[in-house]
Amino acid sequence: MMPSDEWVIDGLQYCNWSGKIFDQMRASGVVAVHATVSYHENFRDTVSNLIAWNRRFERFADRITPGRTAADIDRARAQGKTAIIFGSQNPASIEDDIGLVDVLHRLGLRFMQLTYNNQSLLAAGCYEAQDAGITRMGREVIAEMNRVGMVVDMSHSGETSTLQAIELSRRPIAITHANPFQWAPVVRNKSEPVLRALGQSGGMLGFSLYPLHLRNGTDCSLEDFCTMVARTAELIGVERIGIGSDLCQDQPDSEVHWMRNGRWSKAPPASAGFAPPPRWFTDNTGFGSLRQGLRAIGFAEVDVGRILHRNWLDFFAASFPPSDGARDGA
Amino acid sequence: MMPSDEWVIDGLQYCNWSGKIFDQMRASGVVAVHATVSYHENFRDTVSNLIAWNRRFERFADRITPGRTAADIDRARAQGKTAIIFGSQNPASIEDDIGLVDVLHRLGLRFMQLTYNNQSLLAAGCYEAQDAGITRMGREVIAEMNRVGMVVDMSHSGETSTLQAIELSRRPIAITHANPFQWAPVVRNKSEPVLRALGQSGGMLGFSLYPLHLRNGTDCSLEDFCTMVARTAELIGVERIGIGSDLCQDQPDSEVHWMRNGRWSKAPPASAGFAPPPRWFTDNTGFGSLRQGLRAIGFAEVDVGRILHRNWLDFFAASFPPSDGARDGA
Repeated sequence: MMPSDEWVIDGLQYCNWSGKIFDQMRASGVVAVHATVSYHENFRDTVSNLIAWNRRFERFADRITPGRTAADIDRARAQGKTAIIFGSQNPASIEDDIGLVDVLHRLGLRFMQLTYNNQSLLAAGCYEAQDAGITRMGREVIAEMNRVGMVVDMSHSGETSTLQAIELSRRPIAITHANPFQWAPVVRNKSEPVLRALGQSGGMLGFSLYPLHLRNGTDCSLEDFCTMVARTAELIGVERIGIGSDLCQDQPDSEVHWMRNGRWSKAPPASAGFAPPPRWFTDNTGFGSLRQGLRAIGFAEVDVGRILHRNWLDFFAASFPPSDGARDGA
Repeated sequence: MMPSDEWVIDGLQYCNWSGKIFDQMRASGVVAVHATVSYHENFRDTVSNLIAWNRRFERFADRITPGRTAADIDRARAQGKTAIIFGSQNPASIEDDIGLVDVLHRLGLRFMQLTYNNQSLLAAGCYEAQDAGITRMGREVIAEMNRVGMVVDMSHSGETSTLQAIELSRRPIAITHANPFQWAPVVRNKSEPVLRALGQSGGMLGFSLYPLHLRNGTDCSLEDFCTMVARTAELIGVERIGIGSDLCQDQPDSEVHWMRNGRWSKAPPASAGFAPPPRWFTDNTGFGSLRQGLRAIGFAEVDVGRILHRNWLDFFAASFPPSDGARDGA
């Protein structure tokens, strides 16, 4: 259907999943996607979300399959399916119980953000006025995530917490969906010191296509975005970058309120919902435009492949297996 | 250390687990045991009990290992360890959510009783005055257990519910720990019609050594017990029987109150705790006596092996894998 190297791994999406979206993924060669399964949900509610995924795996068995290992992704590619890799954007899913890290890894969770904007039990979010760094529990949980094979994701974390997580983690971490602050100065984007430390430690940055993370927002041009990708490749290495589109396709605007306010605030729902995505990336078919944009800016074909899939696949292969011999395979 | 065929699989234990007990298991050649992880616990509390097992797997990694497949048991045997197979004595662990069957199977649960003495959402327990059989949800859950590879266990269920479960289940079921009613007429033991239906459907009966299920209780003789085993072999086939000792070693007497009364009754704790086990089976070293008793009563060596391990291993190999191709391995 498409040239053998034109396939995609997306480092983050939070869509309102449907057969239509799975069709678009397949048509666009999206072989694997890290899918958010919880924000403010506690363990039991996160499990309910995983059960909803089990239903989708039964209903759309011809299109999607669980992604727990790099081998699952190779298999999905061979079968023309999309592997779904679970992640939590916030550690509410482990409550105050470090034992739930292993349990959730066994249930397929492969990424967990230590914070989502706010202070958590583990670290500080990027919207807190003060960032006191990784907490006592946070240090324990990072070690446990390292042990079982769950990636520390600092996309929504504060600067100090992120730098400490990079240093404390025995395995490389990820910032699955964010852009350089220097290019688009919003609080969710990352400083050069963070990006350099991430790259030097073998971590991964997934470039976000969420309009609020883009220069000029919805009006960001494809060329401007791809130029930013090229400059970041020069800064931290073309092996350290991928895409984490943060695509929130077909979500109702009410979902923004849950993401931002959860149960922690009594603030009424904001009138605005999701900002419109850039015209060249409104759904998974946008990866075709992105590929053309990366080529047009001068990336060699091998580096286009690295950015669009290979770097994430290598990172998954290194990150998802348990690190100790004692624990049996997931 | 011991003759190559002198090893044991126990179809049920609920001990107060410790290094001492794991040592006794290893010394007695107990290669696998179905261990109860919950009675009246809801899902979250069951998960806490699984987390406690994860701690034991780390702490006693030289002696125990998770038992999720028949291959895990072969591996445990080769390594001189005991494989721990999780089971729930009551469906409180799945709450009212059929999706938790798949989730708990992925977390290692391989047996679930549809009832524990009382009416449940799925079936009637053996102490209810009336047994209306398998409920609407019960039929759905049996089908789901069949699909994922979780054994329906009717040890504490009523007669009608048990007969219906045998008929409704597409895969053979188990009565992991009970004895023939004709031999010891207590409500927990099983009638001939139940035993015949179980045997004809390819199910398994695990003989219990819990004193209240024995003729003459604590004073039951080894010879009397083994004669009962021989008669049951004649009734349902020597391929259909094993041991489910129901060993509750080192449990505090208070545990009896939790097992019997959970949170469903305001009855004060009974003054009596666990009845003393028969002198010839007070811990896992008792399997040596049992082996001698089965030999003395005239069982051929091959049948002693069937009863003490082979039948359970064959049953596990047939019962634990998912039954559909769509679901990936656990």
